[in-house]
Amino acid sequence: MIDRYSRKVMTDIWSDQKKYEIWYEIERYACEAQANLGVIPKEIIDTLDQNKNIIFDAKRINEIEKETKHDVIAFLTFISEIIGDDARFIHQGMTSSDVLDTCFSIQLFRSSELLIEDLKTLLKNLKNLALKHKFTKCIGRSHGIHAEPTTFGLKMAQAYTEMNRNLERLKTASEEIRVGAISGAVGNYSSIDPKVEEYVCKKLGLKVEEISTQIIPRDRHAAFFSTLSVIASSIERLAVEIRHLQRTEIMEVSEFFSKGQKGSSAMPHKKNPIHSENLTGLSRLIRMSVIPALENIVLWHERDISHSSVERVIGPDATVILDFALTRLSLLMENLIVYPENMKKNLYKLNGVIFSQNVLLKLTQKGISREESYKIVQKNALQAIDDDVSFKDLLLNDKETMNVLSPKELDQIFDISRYFKHVDTIYKRIFG
Amino acid sequence: MIDRYSRKVMTDIWSDQKKYEIWYEIERYACEAQANLGVIPKEIIDTLDQNKNIIFDAKRINEIEKETKHDVIAFLTFISEIIGDDARFIHQGMTSSDVLDTCFSIQLFRSSELLIEDLKTLLKNLKNLALKHKFTKCIGRSHGIHAEPTTFGLKMAQAYTEMNRNLERLKTASEEIRVGAISGAVGNYSSIDPKVEEYVCKKLGLKVEEISTQIIPRDRHAAFFSTLSVIASSIERLAVEIRHLQRTEIMEVSEFFSKGQKGSSAMPHKKNPIHSENLTGLSRLIRMSVIPALENIVLWHERDISHSSVERVIGPDATVILDFALTRLSLLMENLIVYPENMKKNLYKLNGVIFSQNVLLKLTQKGISREESYKIVQKNALQAIDDDVSFKDLLLNDKETMNVLSPKELDQIFDISRYFKHVDTIYKRIFG
Amino acid sequence: MIDRYSRKVMTDIWSDQKKYEIWYEIERYACEAQANLGVIPKEIIDTLDQNKNIIFDAKRINEIEKETKHDVIAFLTFISEIIGDDARFIHQGMTSSDVLDTCFSIQLFRSSELLIEDLKTLLKNLKNLALKHKFTKCIGRSHGIHAEPTTFGLKMAQAYTEMNRNLERLKTASEEIRVGAISGAVGNYSSIDPKVEEYVCKKLGLKVEEISTQIIPRDRHAAFFSTLSVIASSIERLAVEIRHLQRTEIMEVSEFFSKGQKGSSAMPHKKNPIHSENLTGLSRLIRMSVIPALENIVLWHERDISHSSVERVIGPDATVILDFALTRLSLLMENLIVYPENMKKNLYKLNGVIFSQNVLLKLTQKGISREESYKIVQKNALQAIDDDVSFKDLLLNDKETMNVLSPKELDQIFDISRYFKHVDTIYKRIFG
Amino acid sequence: MIDRYSRKVMTDIWSDQKKYEIWYEIERYACEAQANLGVIPKEIIDTLDQNKNIIFDAKRINEIEKETKHDVIAFLTFISEIIGDDARFIHQGMTSSDVLDTCFSIQLFRSSELLIEDLKTLLKNLKNLALKHKFTKCIGRSHGIHAEPTTFGLKMAQAYTEMNRNLERLKTASEEIRVGAISGAVGNYSSIDPKVEEYVCKKLGLKVEEISTQIIPRDRHAAFFSTLSVIASSIERLAVEIRHLQRTEIMEVSEFFSKGQKGSSAMPHKKNPIHSENLTGLSRLIRMSVIPALENIVLWHERDISHSSVERVIGPDATVILDFALTRLSLLMENLIVYPENMKKNLYKLNGVIFSQNVLLKLTQKGISREESYKIVQKNALQAIDDDVSFKDLLLNDKETMNVLSPKELDQIFDISRYFKHVDTIYKRIFG
Repeated sequence: MIDRYSRKVMTDIWSDQKKYEIWYEIERYACEAQANLGVIPKEIIDTLDQNKNIIFDAKRINEIEKETKHDVIAFLTFISEIIGDDARFIHQGMTSSDVLDTCFSIQLFRSSELLIEDLKTLLKNLKNLALKHKFTKCIGRSHGIHAEPTTFGLKMAQAYTEMNRNLERLKTASEEIRVGAISGAVGNYSSIDPKVEEYVCKKLGLKVEEISTQIIPRDRHAAFFSTLSVIASSIERLAVEIRHLQRTEIMEVSEFFSKGQKGSSAMPHKKNPIHSENLTGLSRLIRMSVIPALENIVLWHERDISHSSVERVIGPDATVILDFALTRLSLLMENLIVYPENMKKNLYKLNGVIFSQNVLLKLTQKGISREESYKIVQKNALQAIDDDVSFKDLLLNDKETMNVLSPKELDQIFDISRYFKHVDTIYKRIFG
Repeated sequence: MIDRYSRKVMTDIWSDQKKYEIWYEIERYACEAQANLGVIPKEIIDTLDQNKNIIFDAKRINEIEKETKHDVIAFLTFISEIIGDDARFIHQGMTSSDVLDTCFSIQLFRSSELLIEDLKTLLKNLKNLALKHKFTKCIGRSHGIHAEPTTFGLKMAQAYTEMNRNLERLKTASEEIRVGAISGAVGNYSSIDPKVEEYVCKKLGLKVEEISTQIIPRDRHAAFFSTLSVIASSIERLAVEIRHLQRTEIMEVSEFFSKGQKGSSAMPHKKNPIHSENLTGLSRLIRMSVIPALENIVLWHERDISHSSVERVIGPDATVILDFALTRLSLLMENLIVYPENMKKNLYKLNGVIFSQNVLLKLTQKGISREESYKIVQKNALQAIDDDVSFKDLLLNDKETMNVLSPKELDQIFDISRYFKHVDTIYKRIFG
Repeated sequence: MIDRYSRKVMTDIWSDQKKYEIWYEIERYACEAQANLGVIPKEIIDTLDQNKNIIFDAKRINEIEKETKHDVIAFLTFISEIIGDDARFIHQGMTSSDVLDTCFSIQLFRSSELLIEDLKTLLKNLKNLALKHKFTKCIGRSHGIHAEPTTFGLKMAQAYTEMNRNLERLKTASEEIRVGAISGAVGNYSSIDPKVEEYVCKKLGLKVEEISTQIIPRDRHAAFFSTLSVIASSIERLAVEIRHLQRTEIMEVSEFFSKGQKGSSAMPHKKNPIHSENLTGLSRLIRMSVIPALENIVLWHERDISHSSVERVIGPDATVILDFALTRLSLLMENLIVYPENMKKNLYKLNGVIFSQNVLLKLTQKGISREESYKIVQKNALQAIDDDVSFKDLLLNDKETMNVLSPKELDQIFDISRYFKHVDTIYKRIFG
Repeated sequence: MIDRYSRKVMTDIWSDQKKYEIWYEIERYACEAQANLGVIPKEIIDTLDQNKNIIFDAKRINEIEKETKHDVIAFLTFISEIIGDDARFIHQGMTSSDVLDTCFSIQLFRSSELLIEDLKTLLKNLKNLALKHKFTKCIGRSHGIHAEPTTFGLKMAQAYTEMNRNLERLKTASEEIRVGAISGAVGNYSSIDPKVEEYVCKKLGLKVEEISTQIIPRDRHAAFFSTLSVIASSIERLAVEIRHLQRTEIMEVSEFFSKGQKGSSAMPHKKNPIHSENLTGLSRLIRMSVIPALENIVLWHERDISHSSVERVIGPDATVILDFALTRLSLLMENLIVYPENMKKNLYKLNGVIFSQNVLLKLTQKGISREESYKIVQKNALQAIDDDVSFKDLLLNDKETMNVLSPKELDQIFDISRYFKHVDTIYKRIFG
């Protein structure tokens, strides 16, 4: 979790203070439930509420932990230093994991709420671009090679639907992680009533983990981090698209370049797509959490603690970086500079060979075999590229072609509007 | 995809013959739709139907591919060798990806149908074990160390719920992948009506990809393979549990050991949990597909072909191995030998210190501070372990303890039944 | 291991027949050593030698394995079916891992010998290109944006040095894996003299594993597969370079496009860099072996068998695919089409702003502050790009610039030869 | 990089202050070389030396970076704010990567120096344990099942040799990364003499990167992080061994449990192997850097900046965590509590079946076929386990066995000393 790639609104969720506040909240609700059941005196609730704005002295808690080698015990000892003897009523029948795992669920769920907002903002920006450039013609490329025309709006609409799927995935994943557990040692409720768990979870907006073995099973978390990794890779796909389109030879879009910005310390002429490149790297960072998250599933028996150190790192890191990346991408798309003129220029760069499929189809429809048609078209198209001459002119001079096609038919074949006749259909599917 | 870890029912889905059959089916439905639209003559359908039981000569197709360097063109050329000139009506306005991606979706979806069946069988076996051993007492272990009692049924119930979540995840993932696309070069439908796509997909039981850029976007596939990886890791968790419980010193369960089986070439006394260990390795193999599947998302522009080689391997490998692993695990659980007597023996191995939490709670309830109570219990418990003497006896001789507890209260504390009083609640949550 | 990405010379190493031959060879040398020590009768050697051209009937061996659930025992039983009772002298005091692990080392080492040859061929081709294009001028790009001139030879020389480092790494890794072990159960030599191990390893060209715990420790294998992954990524780097340079708008190089090759089933004009894209995908496939190889290190106690299934897959897959990829890349580079004219054209695409650093430096040397110089140069350079006018002309009309620079000095600044004055130095470092 | 898993000595290498100090040092040596070549005035050196104890105000530098969007330019601007106009002589002909990459090499190399020391300390502790417990008998386990006797010293000696290989690997990797580059934009030395690079590298103890394309190629870094990942996995292997041996039912070793330490908040009797479990998790964290490090190799053309964010995280994280893990493991091993009595007890837990191989061998040597011998031994051994009776007694009553063996021969077979007769040989190989 490094400053450079963080937003405060997300790092706050992962701060020590916030963590201790959540622990306190969990313990408080557990006390309330226990008091309701008559297990502990009701007075402890008042004591806890009077101290609810406590500042958690991380330094002192760490000091205690150095001795006890146990973070939750250190926290409870710290509480007892403040509220005194009554502290013994707190945490009764519970085990540390009850607090830790329920807190981690809350932090992940709150993170996902932010990420969901991020995705929605991104979707809005993508939709704007899609609508604005619905018919901004540009070349579609397969294998980096000019293929056939498409529109810049369609590119954006594709990104929109992909991110929309990611939104759905994230919602599913966040529901998976929205569970708490207060089940005691090895999850047997030996010293705590399941009603406490139900009460605490309800108050915290969590579902109850059906069966916990002291810990909430880590398949939930793995599914969560996998989802973040899919989103990260979709971010990278879009970032790489921008990087490609901003290349010197292509220059169809450009990241916003602010006043005073310097592209290179040595070469003042540079305007680099550094945000997209940064997003490419951030994607790798998010993605790297998926393997340890999967390995974390395989805990021994009712639980071991090997997952803990992993989650202390990937919990904040993956969510903080993804939040930053989504925000950066949103901003980038919002301020993206689009060059429709360059798009048009590139579209005709290959002397019209991008119409080759139409010629091929027409020839086969005129009765020439597919094989033969392919050869005719390929020969002329490659010549058009190699000799930098008009593909249409070559065809007009090609006997085999003109045996079956009239010049007028050729005109129709080279009419670009046919490539856009179904854009409406696609948009209707996506935007309704 | 190696024989050793394959079931024919799954490898069949990935055979060359099956692949070509699916391609043929896609092309045939596309022809039907095209004929309905009047684009091509209806007669082609009859020709195709007359040849529908064609044996696809993989050798010949490969030969053609060596020249054309293109698999779908090789396939179409092979068809034209068989049905003659009419073949030119096939594939009109389509691009290879229309066939390849739609076929891949079908293969993945059919694989997931098998995997769903596998999971259901496993769930049945786990449920049987859970019900049978609902009150088969055993020690719960955290950190590999005896913690508190649980039951073997609860272990199985936990695995059941985890696998049940995996079933839900797999259903979601299989729906994600159940999409087809017939959208032509760069997905612009320039030479093919979207109605063809709708028709073909409907016939094949697929949804239409809202917007494809020649290819179906790979975030769908990444989500699919991520899900397989989560399932694989849950398999490993259960396999590792079996491996632990079959250890010589624990011996609470054992894999079935068949007549004639040999555990070791050198040591005839060995009965090793080789299937569980094998499942551990297979899990790693399935999991390794997740990173390349994520990297595959980041294709260039409308498409590049880098994903293809990856999917040729991980498509069959991950599904075939997962199918094999689930089947092996099911069989293993169905035939698992459980040793309740050994479980009971292990339960009391630590001279009763597993009741330590109860003592702790009781002491705090009697007014001793949590800190002080902890020290009393810890001291006696560790002595009980170190000196191999009864924890209860030590407490009976401990002044601080007996100052506040009566012998009768101590008896209640050491009553094991309290650990099982909520088993019913948990089972009701899970099995209703 | 799929045909499509395999060369026979490598798959042969991993065939069942070859595996059994190696097992036989190991057992035979072990017998020889045992006979020399007087542990078993010398006659067994003759028997084994008479049968050395045995055809190993994989089907029959698999049949036996189905009963014994143990591959080495099945093999030994098969041998005894052929050579009869004397077979009992084989494998005495040994354990399966002695055979399996030593064989795996041999297979990996022989694979690495092939891979080393592959790398040497690639290096030769890269060196040829480097020498041929030492002064073939082209634009250097950072962030996909034109930066300053370089030469195509330098690109090739860079790839050469990177692959040369990979060669060294592979040699190191192959030495790491060139170890055998014949140490019996848990590696205690309880029933076999360490002299047998020394003898067998010497005969097979292997070093002796200093301490094996029945198995050869898997850190050796992990280091090996990590090395393959680094090589794979370097392959991808070069493949991505080719893909970029073959882009329609750049077209500085092109993969060889053979007679009869078809780039697209729909668009006959396409010449796609499909081999480079394929190499990009293959790289992902090789790389995915690194995590399971690392996880394999963590075996339990003296050994468990979880690594076995993993290695049955990644052993052949990673080596076979890497061999194929290196061979493909070699061929691609050998037949690469280079377009120096296009390189030159691209070089001047940005109206000379690629000389911006020189202007900057000269201005600072003339006493203008770095900050101020940067602003002057940046302003003119960005205008040259935006308005598509000559950067030099703009400077000639820029007062601040011409206050300190003479037109002649400007000429010197725009002299491209300065960018190549150290090419010799670099080549001397690399090629001597 | 989180406090909890950090040592100051390592985090210092990665502090902002240290980074800026290294940048300053690089720029200063570059100025010296430039001054020697007469490119800039010698006076700048004095200015730089007078300011060498500068406190780098990270806040101010960050402020400038916010405007320039470029970290090195921000740094240079900061310098110019301090030393004034002469700052224009700094960084002449250089590009940011010259500073960044050379600095990163230095940080990684210095990290590796610490890690090498860590490994040496660990090796010392492992050697001590190996020598002390050379003949501390214990059971060797394969598949978690008792196999044959070994010694605890051998376990430690194995860990020693594995870590020793890791030491060699790390030395190799650290040499790979010990390179600097001062080659200017796209690495063409257009405005800087290669002599500057040679001078700076020599002063900093680095080798010169033979050919850099503005950046040092990332295969070097990938090899470095791969090596850290192998070491991490070896750490996990040893940690898992400790976790196994500390299990309640095994209890052959125990992590040191300090005064005041609390194993569980709920169960005061617990002594958990939390450090070994923590090391298991830390291993996953280190290992996760390998994939992004490999992906970083594939930069575009002469360079892109996608690697930067990745390295800002994994650079410090992987080295800091590995340093912490090695230190923790060293301490753990130094203070490890070994229970030889429990080892002895476990050794005979299976009623002597661990001698089964000896019986098998003796029977085959007496002329019984391997197959038949195996059946005899297996039958008796499994009965000994199942009925909890002495294996030897069963054999004494087994006709088939006693037909060929005398009771005296049986005694020899069950003599445990044979398992340790080659320990000296192994130790000689390892420790000389």
